[in-house]
Amino acid sequence: MIELANKVIGCCRELAQFTEEPGRTTRTFLSPPMRDVHRVLGDWMKRLGMRVWVDDAGNLRGLHGRAPKRLVIGSHLDTVPDAGAFDGVLGVVLGIALVEALGNRCPGLFIEVIGFSEEEGVRFGVPFIGSRAVAGTLASDIADVRVCDAIRAFGLNPEDLPAARLTAEAVAYLEFHIEQGPVLESLNLSLGIVDAIVGQSRLLLTFSGHANHAGTTPMNLRHDALAAAAEWILLVEKHAQETAGLVATTGLIHAEPNATNVIPGKVTVSLDVRHANDQARHVAVATLVRAAYETGLRRGMKVGDELRLDQPAVPMDSALGGMFDPGLHHMVSGAGHDAMILAPLLPAAMLFLRSPGGVSHHPDETVLAGDVAAALEAGVRFVQNLEAGLV
Amino acid sequence: MIELANKVIGCCRELAQFTEEPGRTTRTFLSPPMRDVHRVLGDWMKRLGMRVWVDDAGNLRGLHGRAPKRLVIGSHLDTVPDAGAFDGVLGVVLGIALVEALGNRCPGLFIEVIGFSEEEGVRFGVPFIGSRAVAGTLASDIADVRVCDAIRAFGLNPEDLPAARLTAEAVAYLEFHIEQGPVLESLNLSLGIVDAIVGQSRLLLTFSGHANHAGTTPMNLRHDALAAAAEWILLVEKHAQETAGLVATTGLIHAEPNATNVIPGKVTVSLDVRHANDQARHVAVATLVRAAYETGLRRGMKVGDELRLDQPAVPMDSALGGMFDPGLHHMVSGAGHDAMILAPLLPAAMLFLRSPGGVSHHPDETVLAGDVAAALEAGVRFVQNLEAGLV
Repeated sequence: MIELANKVIGCCRELAQFTEEPGRTTRTFLSPPMRDVHRVLGDWMKRLGMRVWVDDAGNLRGLHGRAPKRLVIGSHLDTVPDAGAFDGVLGVVLGIALVEALGNRCPGLFIEVIGFSEEEGVRFGVPFIGSRAVAGTLASDIADVRVCDAIRAFGLNPEDLPAARLTAEAVAYLEFHIEQGPVLESLNLSLGIVDAIVGQSRLLLTFSGHANHAGTTPMNLRHDALAAAAEWILLVEKHAQETAGLVATTGLIHAEPNATNVIPGKVTVSLDVRHANDQARHVAVATLVRAAYETGLRRGMKVGDELRLDQPAVPMDSALGGMFDPGLHHMVSGAGHDAMILAPLLPAAMLFLRSPGGVSHHPDETVLAGDVAAALEAGVRFVQNLEAGLV
Repeated sequence: MIELANKVIGCCRELAQFTEEPGRTTRTFLSPPMRDVHRVLGDWMKRLGMRVWVDDAGNLRGLHGRAPKRLVIGSHLDTVPDAGAFDGVLGVVLGIALVEALGNRCPGLFIEVIGFSEEEGVRFGVPFIGSRAVAGTLASDIADVRVCDAIRAFGLNPEDLPAARLTAEAVAYLEFHIEQGPVLESLNLSLGIVDAIVGQSRLLLTFSGHANHAGTTPMNLRHDALAAAAEWILLVEKHAQETAGLVATTGLIHAEPNATNVIPGKVTVSLDVRHANDQARHVAVATLVRAAYETGLRRGMKVGDELRLDQPAVPMDSALGGMFDPGLHHMVSGAGHDAMILAPLLPAAMLFLRSPGGVSHHPDETVLAGDVAAALEAGVRFVQNLEAGLV
């Protein structure tokens, strides 16, 4: 299997050469280099006897077999600017390689591999265009005039978008993806089964004290908004450390007037809270917002909070996840993936591959050949178990 | 004395109308409205029998009496942008009003009132041009070509700057100034004798952790530069609160990449430390820098520090301060003043007037008539005691 794994990695590296920006990998929705990706992957699929086409959302699709039940294996072909070679693409290439590895071993299951045209949201600020079209949930406000124009410019027809939808033959969705985080590496593991994609809350907190002269205002007469924010930032960190499964991040900070010799009068801090359980996430947000108000009150200043995002968690299908080797590690995904879009429609499963250094969305992003081979072996076992369960 | 105090306040409010920017008070070094200020104050001084001229640094000067020993009373006539009506100007107007209040009571002392042309450093980014010229310490690199051009444009001659220097007749310097802070108000006091202008250290501290995905990086695998900075900001606050006479401020903060969904990888924070005792200030800076390194080390990140300013404290003359009523409150000045420039040359004293609300450098800046009357009475006593000591 290591030979096929090396072929997968070589293919991903080859595809990374197809870019809008010479010298770095940037490939957005229906940009010209996407045609080269379709050609290379389409040729491989055709060599495996698959029927290949590009649907009117620009998704590359390949069908293998003719059984009545269909397993869909997908991930995305677009990238962030200055990307690595594996985010998204690896999942598509692994899907094709898995068809190659299976050969004719599972005649009871029909496999469709999809390379989604758009997940990152870079070109139009709207993510998941490809998988939403396949799920039939691409709202008309998302498929706006610029998206339709891009589809036409690529030689496709936005009128035919409904034909991109999955049919009733699809019984399960599987996505391989690099972890894009450090958990598997820290545990010295190759693979992890994703139990859920976490829900996410985003807020902005403001602490309004009094800006004053740094030299003439004694410590006991200050209402320092940055000191209040600092106290709260540490409470956020401590609360997340002490709460299982919670991550909380204060990533953005802005102080006013932000001058060396002036006590900060107003500080804005962002809060990003994620958990696989929506109730646990909501409790954490309420606790942290209350802590901000208490901190401000004690320091004699006003506090404000503004909710910017409240996105529910998306559980993967546990029965489908059970088709993997039972010894595999279980984990959550802290980032969003195409599986999020498909999971409401059909049972979905995700398998993470270790990200060396936890690095992603960066040219240094990589993957180990042994882990890719392990993913292929896990995939073969998964398909065999699924076929056995379906028959 | 309250009548004269009201005249002082009225004069300051009148002078605030002379501005470069309609609707707000902004009067920089040798700007056109400075001529109006010179005219109004010069007329008042002439009515008191003073000899009046503008020296070649643009300082307004008035002499009263002909005794062999001279008391210099000064402050500055320029303002910050969108200023109040009292910062600086009040000290000059109070000097003239004091001459009026004294009448011929102190024939043994010759009084010179100086309205310094420049203290704030707004026009050329170089503060104290007026008082440095009088002290004879205006280095040639400060009196740069733009300063000389501005002097010529005002009708003065930069070649004659040396003639602006104080002569040996000057035996003492006195400056009245609003406190620009909340201390006297918090103590319910009108006046305070300044024992020293604090020394000041400014540094930039950097915490370099690892920027990472806010969703995929568990709490225990983070190196969050903002959490480290927050911990240190609270240590700075606590250390200053627990150290007598110390103020320490973290006024400026900058996080990278400063995005809601990314753990901050690098944070820069400024540190401003002030104390009337230079050794105490240096010990505090060393303690706080060491605390930053310890915080970073514990969190597995790099810390850097850069010293940007190390300005020594300037003590006022305690014997001269003793000429005031012994019952007056003693305090330090957290901000710089012209007295800082004169103190190395001759005994200097400063008297602070309460700043309602601690407000300064703002149109709401004000002063109480009762406090101005008290300052005039304290000034009369000071001059009488000084004359008695000199005879």
